[in-house]
Amino acid sequence: MARTPRRHRRLVLPLLCLLSQGATALLFAIFVRYNHETDAALWHWGNNSNVDNEFYFRYPSFQDVHAMIFVGFGFLMVFLQRYGFSSVGFTFLVAAFTLQWATLAQGFLHSFHDGHIHVGVESLINADFCAGAVLISFGAVLGKTGPAQLLLMALLETVLFSVNEFILLSLLGVRDAGGSMTIHTFGAYFGLFLSRVLYRSQLEKSRQRQSSVYHSDLFAMIGTVFLWIFWPSFNSAPTELGDGQHRTALNTYYSLTASTLSTFALSALVSGDGRLDMVHIQNAALAGGVVVGTSSEMMLTPFGAMAAGFLAGTVSTLGYKFFTPVLESKFKVQDTCGVHNLHGMPGVLGALLGVLVAWLATHEAYGDGLQSVFPLVATGQRSATSQAVYQLFGMFVTLGFASMGGSLGGFLLRLPFLDSPPDSQCFEDQVYWEVPGEQEAEAQRPLRAEEPDTQA
Amino acid sequence: MARTPRRHRRLVLPLLCLLSQGATALLFAIFVRYNHETDAALWHWGNNSNVDNEFYFRYPSFQDVHAMIFVGFGFLMVFLQRYGFSSVGFTFLVAAFTLQWATLAQGFLHSFHDGHIHVGVESLINADFCAGAVLISFGAVLGKTGPAQLLLMALLETVLFSVNEFILLSLLGVRDAGGSMTIHTFGAYFGLFLSRVLYRSQLEKSRQRQSSVYHSDLFAMIGTVFLWIFWPSFNSAPTELGDGQHRTALNTYYSLTASTLSTFALSALVSGDGRLDMVHIQNAALAGGVVVGTSSEMMLTPFGAMAAGFLAGTVSTLGYKFFTPVLESKFKVQDTCGVHNLHGMPGVLGALLGVLVAWLATHEAYGDGLQSVFPLVATGQRSATSQAVYQLFGMFVTLGFASMGGSLGGFLLRLPFLDSPPDSQCFEDQVYWEVPGEQEAEAQRPLRAEEPDTQA
Amino acid sequence: MARTPRRHRRLVLPLLCLLSQGATALLFAIFVRYNHETDAALWHWGNNSNVDNEFYFRYPSFQDVHAMIFVGFGFLMVFLQRYGFSSVGFTFLVAAFTLQWATLAQGFLHSFHDGHIHVGVESLINADFCAGAVLISFGAVLGKTGPAQLLLMALLETVLFSVNEFILLSLLGVRDAGGSMTIHTFGAYFGLFLSRVLYRSQLEKSRQRQSSVYHSDLFAMIGTVFLWIFWPSFNSAPTELGDGQHRTALNTYYSLTASTLSTFALSALVSGDGRLDMVHIQNAALAGGVVVGTSSEMMLTPFGAMAAGFLAGTVSTLGYKFFTPVLESKFKVQDTCGVHNLHGMPGVLGALLGVLVAWLATHEAYGDGLQSVFPLVATGQRSATSQAVYQLFGMFVTLGFASMGGSLGGFLLRLPFLDSPPDSQCFEDQVYWEVPGEQEAEAQRPLRAEEPDTQA
Repeated sequence: MARTPRRHRRLVLPLLCLLSQGATALLFAIFVRYNHETDAALWHWGNNSNVDNEFYFRYPSFQDVHAMIFVGFGFLMVFLQRYGFSSVGFTFLVAAFTLQWATLAQGFLHSFHDGHIHVGVESLINADFCAGAVLISFGAVLGKTGPAQLLLMALLETVLFSVNEFILLSLLGVRDAGGSMTIHTFGAYFGLFLSRVLYRSQLEKSRQRQSSVYHSDLFAMIGTVFLWIFWPSFNSAPTELGDGQHRTALNTYYSLTASTLSTFALSALVSGDGRLDMVHIQNAALAGGVVVGTSSEMMLTPFGAMAAGFLAGTVSTLGYKFFTPVLESKFKVQDTCGVHNLHGMPGVLGALLGVLVAWLATHEAYGDGLQSVFPLVATGQRSATSQAVYQLFGMFVTLGFASMGGSLGGFLLRLPFLDSPPDSQCFEDQVYWEVPGEQEAEAQRPLRAEEPDTQA
Repeated sequence: MARTPRRHRRLVLPLLCLLSQGATALLFAIFVRYNHETDAALWHWGNNSNVDNEFYFRYPSFQDVHAMIFVGFGFLMVFLQRYGFSSVGFTFLVAAFTLQWATLAQGFLHSFHDGHIHVGVESLINADFCAGAVLISFGAVLGKTGPAQLLLMALLETVLFSVNEFILLSLLGVRDAGGSMTIHTFGAYFGLFLSRVLYRSQLEKSRQRQSSVYHSDLFAMIGTVFLWIFWPSFNSAPTELGDGQHRTALNTYYSLTASTLSTFALSALVSGDGRLDMVHIQNAALAGGVVVGTSSEMMLTPFGAMAAGFLAGTVSTLGYKFFTPVLESKFKVQDTCGVHNLHGMPGVLGALLGVLVAWLATHEAYGDGLQSVFPLVATGQRSATSQAVYQLFGMFVTLGFASMGGSLGGFLLRLPFLDSPPDSQCFEDQVYWEVPGEQEAEAQRPLRAEEPDTQA
Repeated sequence: MARTPRRHRRLVLPLLCLLSQGATALLFAIFVRYNHETDAALWHWGNNSNVDNEFYFRYPSFQDVHAMIFVGFGFLMVFLQRYGFSSVGFTFLVAAFTLQWATLAQGFLHSFHDGHIHVGVESLINADFCAGAVLISFGAVLGKTGPAQLLLMALLETVLFSVNEFILLSLLGVRDAGGSMTIHTFGAYFGLFLSRVLYRSQLEKSRQRQSSVYHSDLFAMIGTVFLWIFWPSFNSAPTELGDGQHRTALNTYYSLTASTLSTFALSALVSGDGRLDMVHIQNAALAGGVVVGTSSEMMLTPFGAMAAGFLAGTVSTLGYKFFTPVLESKFKVQDTCGVHNLHGMPGVLGALLGVLVAWLATHEAYGDGLQSVFPLVATGQRSATSQAVYQLFGMFVTLGFASMGGSLGGFLLRLPFLDSPPDSQCFEDQVYWEVPGEQEAEAQRPLRAEEPDTQA
């Protein structure tokens, strides 16, 4: 059996890449066109001022989001001692594929008219957001799935993400700029249900590789820090221009400072000897960005952002310490990166915070800006209370799509020809990568002599 | 005694985090409000064009500054072989705390009206600047202070930073956009005086850890390069819009190229065998950004920027080679990162350069732009010479605040319950962090076998 | 002989740095002035609105390009196990020098009037582009040249780059915004011809160092990912404002996703056992950015961008697998980083794609935007076919300049006092850098025990 998967893999991954690329290219040729701000003829037809091109309002934020997806997520997952190539490499592959596929899936639902999908900088941001959700799910199954499985997962998840997003934003009129629901809650529970279906009772066999070494933890901090600094751009990238983007960035900034402080406090408190745990710092400190994903465009107030961030950092750190083990032992969910703690719980909290802040919205607090944040309330089609109920409903819709989609995905990924790594070869780059020095190294030294910088 | 600090630490760090977070949250709730450009009602009240929102002029620069603080400073200090977790982790903690606290301290002094502090993107930039000063001071005491000490240092330094900044910019009418005085000179001498008070005569016991390994030097270069590329944004982030930001970025760019060339030249010259020293490249090459912090918004000319950068790189490299040892042996100042060479001397040089360029300011050279750069000179309230004298005075005020503040801070940080690391455990992550593989590693190999990639 | 070079180097590198810095500073003093948008008097003279300052349209893109040059190129070349200091350090030195020198060379040719060179944000972008070409050439000779040689190479290459660029863009009216020809083709073939002249028949002696270790490959991925995410800014930084920048960024984004998918597919296909090769992922995945350098500002269509990226990733991966060995054995070109695969072939393909897309340009497709993309066609001075012929001619001019320049450079770099590393000391940091722990390490362990994280 050891040889069959390898021969399979030799064809499955390339075939999947080539087939999916062929299909998206064909669909692009038929359906995808430049939008009004991107097309030479259309833009110049209206005698527009260049200052007004959407590009100048959104492209800097887009680039920050782009850095979060590829640098942030990619390196955050490099913490495993022998899975760095796969973490950053599969992030690269899966995200690149998702960007194409999400342009189509979201395009058909959001910007399809006159028989064409019209793309511009907002398409890029939305596609990156979808890639964010897929990478969150990847975090749950990191080390236990091969690249062909991940591509299939992305294929399915992108479709469901787009449908869920469409239902929330377009049909239900839910507000969720930074995606507490559509990105974090969806991505986390999709990944967790998927991981549940792929449960490995024999994962012990690879447990010695499921930890970090000194330098892999430093690489992971690159991911953490890039996610942390650019999160204000993430939440504000798709919001209304002007005060909307400005306020969203500000709220996210304060929320993240608070989640950082609570994470350090809790990490020291829950450890036996008062020392800090890198896993908490790398992850839970980011929960402040997740928890204001829905509400940061609203009049949350700087204090509100801070309180939310504090709570999220606390819940997330406690989750890593106390809930992750239970999740595996009781619920048979093996969550490699702890996405339940960083995206799942803070995402749900963020959705609930959005319910609360929407419920509190008044004409007095928002003035004419109410039109931008809650257009249906501003035009009198809904009361603030009604908006809050829709927000809550949106969360349950998201949980439903994520759990069903993740379960379905799990069964799909169990297809035997997808070349899943064996239980004894999880968290191991050599299964999928040519690793430098593997021959010499294998012959030479015993396992776990590989922490070169940590001995006293 | 070995057990008492650990029990202390278990409570001191979390308590400090929670108390300070509680206090800032309370003050935020009472005092901090969105400003006119961030508030939904206020922004829409005036029928503003979104193009005019300050966000679009300053947010991209802010993000670059944000990257410098967390990626740049954080990774620059990772050069120590066994202190990477602390370098990047404590940078994270201390900067996050400072961002909150500086919003308040600077807000009360700069943007307090009608009983409230009004925040927007400029508040974010200013808070990040204050965090920069605190991290410079951190560089002086790196490896010799625990996180609780650093939080207290940040608490004190932020207040003094804000007062000094207020005196210079608001009371004295001094120009210092990129902070040669307010950030670099202040941060460096605060840290150096603090380090003087905390002088450890027995630091030899930890000397074997006070050096780099091959990969830690590469991590540090991540910090260097991010600081280098984004420094034009740092100096230009708070300057006047239009030509002001444009010119500042340009001057900083040229100054940095020159400090890089002089650093390479001098590093090879002063070494015994013509080889380059990573310490110089990682640090002194950045001195060009520091030295034009005051003058880059002025009509410095590209040549002037280049000459200044060249001088700064030279002085800084010579400082690392010849002055740092003297600083420790004669002045009993142990300056781990050599902040005196990168921020202290170039900061003072930058202040003096500002004196010179202000003195040379004429209506002819600045035209109507004089109003933006030297408003008091443009309106005739001051002559250029008088402005130059004020600039010089501002430097001495800064040195005074920094030296007194740093000394005070040093005595504060000697409070015994703050859990300073013992002399034999400086520059060591394991004191404050759970380090992967420490048990196996400790049992296994002798000290300093940890340079795995450098042996021939 | 072993001692003479070291004594030489002690003077050659510093002297070259100081001389070149002195010369550029002098030329800056005489010739370089702020342009209309950077000068306080000139900008305020016209009563301009700050919104219109070029700074706000181009500075965010410039910063992305700046990150690509220093972070992207610098770290991409860190993949060698013992050459990380040199890769990132010499990138730093050579690029800093080139930025100064290119400001002059390009300034004399492009923005010289009234006896002065006028600089602004576009000068910064153009200088960074020139540095990109120089660093591509550096990639071909990486590990086999000392810093003094590299400075001389940059001196010569910058001049030829600027002349070639001037001929193409100004004399021939060729379009090449993202530099498929002027940057990638020029830089690659300059480097390859230079490497041909510097051919080392005894390079086997250093072959054991010409490979990666586990963590050096992860550092290289930092370079890859930063190049990948910011490439849309690279191609769009100098294009026309409005739809031009917008479309260029969009096309580049889609092209890169396709080259990533084809690289993963081909890498797995061409390996013996279906496993992926880090060399391909680190490099060939970027070919999509190169291949649309000329055409991404044109009406390429998203599908066209995708098809081009797919082709480039394929050609590039096949090049690494099959052509690089032939290049060395048959053509005696030792191409350390495989720049022929990443920049050479995709650059030529990109030039040809530009020929095709220019040939297809119609008034109907571009509307009034034709004026921005093909001004000579819009004004009737040329037909689209004629523009296509000029584009093709531009490619041959570039190949001519690159091959002659590279050959000339090769003979120049063979000057004996430039201290080239001996055949047995190539790809080795210790020749030019003080490396931590070298004494202990040398005494201690055999070669190639240095892959600490890859043994099972």
